[in-house]
Amino acid sequence: MDVTQRIEQALEAALKRAEVPESPPKLAAAIRYAVFPGGARIRPRLCLAVAQACGDDQPQISDAAAVAIELMHCGSLVHDDLPAFDNAATRRGKPSVHAAHGQCEAILVGDALIVQAFEVLAVAALARPERLSGLILNLSRFSGMSHGIIAGQAWECEPAIALDAYHRQKTGSLFAAATASGAIAAGYEPQPWVILGERIGEAYQVADDIQDMLADPEAWGKPCGQDARLGRPNALRELGLDGAVARLKDLLKNAIDSIPACPGAAELRNTILAQSSRFLPEELARRAA
Amino acid sequence: MDVTQRIEQALEAALKRAEVPESPPKLAAAIRYAVFPGGARIRPRLCLAVAQACGDDQPQISDAAAVAIELMHCGSLVHDDLPAFDNAATRRGKPSVHAAHGQCEAILVGDALIVQAFEVLAVAALARPERLSGLILNLSRFSGMSHGIIAGQAWECEPAIALDAYHRQKTGSLFAAATASGAIAAGYEPQPWVILGERIGEAYQVADDIQDMLADPEAWGKPCGQDARLGRPNALRELGLDGAVARLKDLLKNAIDSIPACPGAAELRNTILAQSSRFLPEELARRAA
Repeated sequence: MDVTQRIEQALEAALKRAEVPESPPKLAAAIRYAVFPGGARIRPRLCLAVAQACGDDQPQISDAAAVAIELMHCGSLVHDDLPAFDNAATRRGKPSVHAAHGQCEAILVGDALIVQAFEVLAVAALARPERLSGLILNLSRFSGMSHGIIAGQAWECEPAIALDAYHRQKTGSLFAAATASGAIAAGYEPQPWVILGERIGEAYQVADDIQDMLADPEAWGKPCGQDARLGRPNALRELGLDGAVARLKDLLKNAIDSIPACPGAAELRNTILAQSSRFLPEELARRAA
Repeated sequence: MDVTQRIEQALEAALKRAEVPESPPKLAAAIRYAVFPGGARIRPRLCLAVAQACGDDQPQISDAAAVAIELMHCGSLVHDDLPAFDNAATRRGKPSVHAAHGQCEAILVGDALIVQAFEVLAVAALARPERLSGLILNLSRFSGMSHGIIAGQAWECEPAIALDAYHRQKTGSLFAAATASGAIAAGYEPQPWVILGERIGEAYQVADDIQDMLADPEAWGKPCGQDARLGRPNALRELGLDGAVARLKDLLKNAIDSIPACPGAAELRNTILAQSSRFLPEELARRAA
């Protein structure tokens, strides 16, 4: 099974398990709408790539680790798009969840996806309970109020923004969660894998900043010019196109250099290079080359 | 240490651990505002009472179980009060979180408290990792989209409300989570304890319905008449005062009759009777007697 199919099947199974006759049907539909069809699924791909590099000895735990990261990511997008934050009318090329299903459902979809992320881990780790606490601590650390995406989002509401913390938390954290939880799922220590995720996350953020200013919103699937509109930092505006592209390449090199010793290090390197080459659409990559 | 002190100290320690220099300060303040001062802390009291009835052999895990339930409860109140739902300006006798800290913070406070609830369990269970999966599965089941408080809240946005599921999920579920997780924390099987929580939750809901129509909003700490205003079911309106009070008493008797065999069953019975006598304020209890 290729990795795309593996991720989509695992996500489908996770939602299916939660869709019981007692669930409110509009909520279930809105959750499904938030998860399918997905974006590039970059974080679960990264998680599975690391798990495979570490031997992937418990595939159902690796699947759960990847699904948990993606559900947490989808949930955060739904809340970030709300009128109180970005007020984004579109996401992944279709109306955002609150635009299509209303604000009540959108708030609850985000809540439900956070809960579901933790549940998925606990269900899968029943076979190897000694891996569960690492997975839960990793997911909560990189999602929560101290170092996680929730903290990252909250900086946008602070009167003074701590730029380093903002970027690390808002984007880097779920990438770090992805690499670290891929390692834990396969029985490895997470800490050596954090830097890989953080650097890829930073590179992804630079690419996102470039797209925000240069992409075709139709092709990108969400509104452009959001950073300027919302007064947010943007690498392209600060470094210029050449500078931003150089920074992106530098971050990816650092990321790859940080890969810890593991059976599949060489293949992981290739996978990351292949995946990151899609951070910018072809036309932008050419303009940036 | 008495149980009130035990709960407040455990909550304080949980928030303190998350308040690192990198957390956004406004978010940290809003989270603290949502948790302190608390309401009656009925759910964590119930959780600890069950843990103690089962021997409480790992007090730090019992504390975490109680804290997790209360953080999940506080988070759900913050989201339920949002303008998209109840649009409640007050809670626990002070402005609601969104009224005091804005909608952005309120959304993120709810998200952060959900994450924190799971994190607290994983940290405490490091000493007895075999108890963690039960605790996580229990909390996620009674919080999530299939049987939990999120499903309960979502029924309020459905065109047709499934009344039984609505009540069981919206109120009963976190009480069931409380009794079941108190048992798991002390090394007992959760399933026999679910019915106790469900019945107490139903009784609490009847009391809440009575207060919604009869209480003094100043003393109650939140707006009255919400059920009528929001078109929600209300036991007092449906059964009359005598009928509602009879139902409350009946539910409490069923609850107590359901207590499974355990070393502290007799004391637990007394604790539940003492706690539930505070479901209605004295004056209302007299009118209801």
